Amino acid sequence: MKKNPAKKTRARAVKPLIGKLVVFGVGLIGGSFALALKKRRAVAHVVGVGRSRANLLAARRLGIIDEIASDAASAVKDADLVLLAVPLGQTRAVLAQIAPHLAPHTVVSDAGSTKRDVIDSARRQLGAAFPRFVPAHPIAGTEKSGATAAFPELFTERNLILTPVAETSPGALKLVAAAWKLAGARVVTMDAAAHDRMFALVSHLPHLLSFTAVSNIAGYPDAKNLFQHTGGGFRDWTRIAGSSPEMWRDICVANRDALLNALDSYLSDLEEVRGMLEASDAAALEAKFATARAARAKWLTPK
Amino acid sequence: MKKNPAKKTRARAVKPLIGKLVVFGVGLIGGSFALALKKRRAVAHVVGVGRSRANLLAARRLGIIDEIASDAASAVKDADLVLLAVPLGQTRAVLAQIAPHLAPHTVVSDAGSTKRDVIDSARRQLGAAFPRFVPAHPIAGTEKSGATAAFPELFTERNLILTPVAETSPGALKLVAAAWKLAGARVVTMDAAAHDRMFALVSHLPHLLSFTAVSNIAGYPDAKNLFQHTGGGFRDWTRIAGSSPEMWRDICVANRDALLNALDSYLSDLEEVRGMLEASDAAALEAKFATARAARAKWLTPK
Repeated sequence: MKKNPAKKTRARAVKPLIGKLVVFGVGLIGGSFALALKKRRAVAHVVGVGRSRANLLAARRLGIIDEIASDAASAVKDADLVLLAVPLGQTRAVLAQIAPHLAPHTVVSDAGSTKRDVIDSARRQLGAAFPRFVPAHPIAGTEKSGATAAFPELFTERNLILTPVAETSPGALKLVAAAWKLAGARVVTMDAAAHDRMFALVSHLPHLLSFTAVSNIAGYPDAKNLFQHTGGGFRDWTRIAGSSPEMWRDICVANRDALLNALDSYLSDLEEVRGMLEASDAAALEAKFATARAARAKWLTPK
Repeated sequence: MKKNPAKKTRARAVKPLIGKLVVFGVGLIGGSFALALKKRRAVAHVVGVGRSRANLLAARRLGIIDEIASDAASAVKDADLVLLAVPLGQTRAVLAQIAPHLAPHTVVSDAGSTKRDVIDSARRQLGAAFPRFVPAHPIAGTEKSGATAAFPELFTERNLILTPVAETSPGALKLVAAAWKLAGARVVTMDAAAHDRMFALVSHLPHLLSFTAVSNIAGYPDAKNLFQHTGGGFRDWTRIAGSSPEMWRDICVANRDALLNALDSYLSDLEEVRGMLEASDAAALEAKFATARAARAKWLTPK
């Protein structure tokens, strides 16, 4: 792979990293990946596959994809890279559809928020092609979804986590890492189980708690009035509850065990805090709050 | 009260709404109130009282206050309006200090996040002056604190809630309402108990949950690494955990009963969601998440 963005005539002549990219699920993640690679001239042709015709038409109109595939088999023919950017619940079905049609050089990757279950599915569905499956998870996103939400800078300086297994082909891994680096991401490699535990704590649990908090308020008879008295803090605190219910349903079920562990640890802390409150233990409450504020100041302050 | 901002010479000659304003606690709220009234030329002289000499010096340097009071007694002498913008835990002590020194016309108000406990304190401490105490709560703020965080637009188009009781003097109520309107706020009147229940749900519980969530993550041995893998969603979700531990300790203790009710309702919903997760009940989880997203879209989307 050569990079020479300064000289346009030569850049055009250089063979792009990926000749044909197929994106299953041209939403925020899949669409932004295609746009980022196009911007870097790292892909020659992008084919989109998806459930919503309207979304695919929008993606083509916006220049995210060049072609709408009529079916999975024709879509993946001669593909260099196939990216699955579908809700986790569809991963197994898409893998089963494409498995018989993959060329010997085609690399398959995903963008799923959990990794152990995706690896299990890929191992079962892809058979001999499994070494060319590269499990990946870009740590980026907003609460918006669909092709119209996509933009090429989504992954700039964000982490892209690879969780390869023993069978994963070094060449396939190299291609996927190179593509994400071109898309602007920092590539990090870790074990799939470590990934799933980590994101249960810092992403899946927060979403579960935020959805539950908003639906709790919505359940009060005077919910409308309550929401009208919220401020900017509440709005930020509940932003993630605007995320896709389907996507998060799938993530929760796929990462159930790690998420239950994370939830039980939180519930245990919350019961402890409830005890402090019931006892009007001001000092204990203040110490708990100060721990949180200090941790946030130390680790979460934007650089 | 006359308003004529267009003609400067006349505006200068018009008597301001408040001759002498005394602010106890010149932080984000108290400081912004003084700045907003100064900007509207609605106050002639502002006196600041507080525990931190450095903060008061900063407030005077920034033009938030004109004078630093040496003690509470001299501060409130001949005051037209005394605003208590201190953490709730200090309210009773400040009321006790000022009570013997209030002139017959002096109006006292507060900015506390809970109202029943403040009203109880004022009734006990102010005695004959209690009718001139106007319980108030501006619904504004950021996670920042101190005089340097103050700015005159903080209350623009934000709600200011008044919770007068039977004894409250109509004249005192009118003065406080007029001052907050000049500061840019929308004045809303409600019952103190209704206020305390409402803000337990939309403000106090969110803060309690956010502090607990961040301290939960901070308690893991690999907390540093966990925080490094958080994204923008986590950052927004935990912004309120950057708030003042002292202020929130006091709010939680002052509004304990309403907050316990709110917490128990949330815990009950969270146990229900835990059951759905343990049973891998995808449909129930999706319905719960969809309820939250729909409520948020309907009621929380910025206009």
